[in-house]
Amino acid sequence: MTQGLKNGNVLPMDSFALVIFGATGNLAQKYLLQVLYDMAEKGLLPEKMSIIGVARKVMNNDDFKKYVHEVLHRRNLHHTHPIKEEVFEDLAKRLHYIDGHLDNPEFYKRLNDFLNKLTKSGNNCDNRIYYLATYPDLYSHVFENLNSQKMNKQTNGFVRLMIEKPIGTNLQSARALNNLLLKYFSEDQIYRLDHYLGKETIQNILTFRFSNDIFEPMINKDYIDHIQITASEDFGIGSRGGYYDAVGALKDVGQNHQLQMLAFATMDCPVEFSSKAVTTQRLKILQSLQPLAQKTVFGQYEDYRLEKNVDPKSEIETFYAIKTYIKSERFKNVPIYIRAGKKLKQTVTEISIVFKNPPSRLFHGLTSGDEPNVLIYRIQPNEGIVLKIVTKKPGHKLELEDEYMQFCYKLDPHSHYIPDPYERLLTDTIRGDKTFFNTAEEVEAQWSFIDPLIKDKPKAHSYKQGSWGPKEADELIEADGRKWLEPSMDFCRI
Amino acid sequence: MTQGLKNGNVLPMDSFALVIFGATGNLAQKYLLQVLYDMAEKGLLPEKMSIIGVARKVMNNDDFKKYVHEVLHRRNLHHTHPIKEEVFEDLAKRLHYIDGHLDNPEFYKRLNDFLNKLTKSGNNCDNRIYYLATYPDLYSHVFENLNSQKMNKQTNGFVRLMIEKPIGTNLQSARALNNLLLKYFSEDQIYRLDHYLGKETIQNILTFRFSNDIFEPMINKDYIDHIQITASEDFGIGSRGGYYDAVGALKDVGQNHQLQMLAFATMDCPVEFSSKAVTTQRLKILQSLQPLAQKTVFGQYEDYRLEKNVDPKSEIETFYAIKTYIKSERFKNVPIYIRAGKKLKQTVTEISIVFKNPPSRLFHGLTSGDEPNVLIYRIQPNEGIVLKIVTKKPGHKLELEDEYMQFCYKLDPHSHYIPDPYERLLTDTIRGDKTFFNTAEEVEAQWSFIDPLIKDKPKAHSYKQGSWGPKEADELIEADGRKWLEPSMDFCRI
Repeated sequence: MTQGLKNGNVLPMDSFALVIFGATGNLAQKYLLQVLYDMAEKGLLPEKMSIIGVARKVMNNDDFKKYVHEVLHRRNLHHTHPIKEEVFEDLAKRLHYIDGHLDNPEFYKRLNDFLNKLTKSGNNCDNRIYYLATYPDLYSHVFENLNSQKMNKQTNGFVRLMIEKPIGTNLQSARALNNLLLKYFSEDQIYRLDHYLGKETIQNILTFRFSNDIFEPMINKDYIDHIQITASEDFGIGSRGGYYDAVGALKDVGQNHQLQMLAFATMDCPVEFSSKAVTTQRLKILQSLQPLAQKTVFGQYEDYRLEKNVDPKSEIETFYAIKTYIKSERFKNVPIYIRAGKKLKQTVTEISIVFKNPPSRLFHGLTSGDEPNVLIYRIQPNEGIVLKIVTKKPGHKLELEDEYMQFCYKLDPHSHYIPDPYERLLTDTIRGDKTFFNTAEEVEAQWSFIDPLIKDKPKAHSYKQGSWGPKEADELIEADGRKWLEPSMDFCRI
Repeated sequence: MTQGLKNGNVLPMDSFALVIFGATGNLAQKYLLQVLYDMAEKGLLPEKMSIIGVARKVMNNDDFKKYVHEVLHRRNLHHTHPIKEEVFEDLAKRLHYIDGHLDNPEFYKRLNDFLNKLTKSGNNCDNRIYYLATYPDLYSHVFENLNSQKMNKQTNGFVRLMIEKPIGTNLQSARALNNLLLKYFSEDQIYRLDHYLGKETIQNILTFRFSNDIFEPMINKDYIDHIQITASEDFGIGSRGGYYDAVGALKDVGQNHQLQMLAFATMDCPVEFSSKAVTTQRLKILQSLQPLAQKTVFGQYEDYRLEKNVDPKSEIETFYAIKTYIKSERFKNVPIYIRAGKKLKQTVTEISIVFKNPPSRLFHGLTSGDEPNVLIYRIQPNEGIVLKIVTKKPGHKLELEDEYMQFCYKLDPHSHYIPDPYERLLTDTIRGDKTFFNTAEEVEAQWSFIDPLIKDKPKAHSYKQGSWGPKEADELIEADGRKWLEPSMDFCRI
């Protein structure tokens, strides 16, 4: 099943049915429907593929097509180019809609009958992907009823389930959900999405590390001083107050995105490029992370409590800074500093591998000559893989200056092919490639690390909007004689 | 004396006299006078500095000024911008001229009297730089007569001698010239120019290697497969037939430029950034080179013998390819391939450090995934320091592509300060910094390597214009299971 990437296939020729539970919801509107349009435009949808929207709202097929049409036009954040009617028509011919309540067993029978009818009419729906764009509290109803109708069984084709983060809100609830999932599906049917894993720049970390020979020998405690991971946003929570205030920054982007970024940057080389081998190594990192509750700082931006749908006495964090270690011989005593937050100075996501700066350096003492080399995986903006180096400033004097050796996506002639992460992950699901999805074990390892950090959750320190977070975050790293790196906007701007 | 670069001084405040022996010759016209204008424009000439032109032609000061004015306007190859009259005036006020025959003792007395008179009038000429822009067969006359007049003695100030390559035409003649020089001057008074050592990109190799920590640990036999050095030109000998046909490619650019490039790329870290420490390490490489006469290929481009001032039966080489080794533990068994020539496919000068490609590489077998990493010092064109890497081609398939991590001079905001190599070397001479000049030992080590390669000089194989030289050069490297790298024009083009 997990062969897609390896043999270079883009798509299987088999058609299939994509069932979207929650087709009128926010998730479907914002991502899935947009991506389906993109794939239609690129000719990536199999000819006889069917898309079945499911929601409570009573609509017929034509209503649903109108709704999708309207969503595509309205949500112009995603599409920078105009929607083409002929592409929409190509998408629309695959669109079907069935209304129903997800806790109603009768509905599933109707759905199954409908899929079987489609199959009989020549549109093979024995291959099925269920996309859960619905609230987690409905999951159990969906799974049980699919099971009652044997719609989870891979009798005549594949049956796959796409499920969005969060998987639980702590280790216990994540375990419960995974157990529930595994009661009705096998692990290889379950595609747990973390859209960060679908990003080209994240996936390229593996290629960069393991298909080049020059950096990997230095990715260890002998050469690395420490690692920093930053995911900062210069904007606030916007209209997400209701969700965000219940969750906070650490569960929103720490437990999932940032821990995965760390795993990609530090995992050992897998024995082969297969889903199992890659996941094994990623998991090893996640399971080796050392939670240090005393070395965790939370922050909340000033006036956060005035935001819409936020508790006026909210103690939730909009910022965190974490120190951790990977318990392995390779990274022994290499501290890892992770921070993320909202309303910070810049919007930037990057991993910085900061190398040691041996005292024997020839030009020590000269201006700016004491800066260490840093390998930067820049996820956004100015995407690229960049090495901060010291060079001689052109001219008669011997002056050193910080410069960059830059690999920039914007300079790559193929950069316009970079697919949206959702498009990539949907494509991977279609071809049965689980490499860039989270396994149950991974999710549980993430929570095992996060839970101790919030067990006796420390107070969130107030910080100024447009700053780099509370001073306690600076103190966290400065206590070790280090400092947070100011993300540079001096590379890959072209 | 050799402190200039280290303490960051650009120029000493002391004035001095620059005596140009051969002021009407080609070398003076092409480089020195141009560079003096540049330095005047940049305000780099000390206020009371005097420039004394010397040649056989009978002229007065005004004639000389007119001549310099005319040379600056005529030689527009050097200056891309127009000559400014006010800058020329600033230069002209320092210009003096004395005619004389260099083999005539009386002339040196006149010259000395003139310099002493200038000193008395307030333009300190006790500091003197003699620039030899004359034919080597006049050197002995110049040295002896300077000595007779005690003009080589550093009694009241510094006395320095700038002498151009070639230093001899083989080890024996180089030794003879060095001995002659050392009869009248101490080694620290002698500035042997190789203008390649004045290039910003060459000098930056040291900064890059020794003020960064990330590459140096890999510059050794454990990580390097081999090294290639290319200096190719897509043009022919032009009007230089008379000189070139007597010398050939190996003595023209091999003995000096290319061996020095190799030394910069492979030398050990000096104990400090001083002239002596740097030269010591460079010399160590030059003295460790293993001459392999059997692994030397010469070529001559088709129709070379029809060029102006070339012997119609000439056997001189316009191309060479060399294999060598550095006899050291660090580079044990790392082959070094050096080639240079005229009328080749491209004009490019670069050093390529080709790293090993271990069989454990994860993506082996995928398109273009077997290319090794290469660290490229690109001297020209598209100057920069660039690492050839493999990355994931953006898109759904897992395809690898060759890319570059680029540090490009053209992207450096200070790149417009890059001085002409002659300007830099003249500046270094003024401030007494010999770091980027050849010592007697270096020149002799170079000839010790070159002499055995041409002792029984093999036939020059004919090669097509616009090719990469004779097929024998390909066979030289292919016999080792390697190939010449095609210089890439895909980086630093901006």
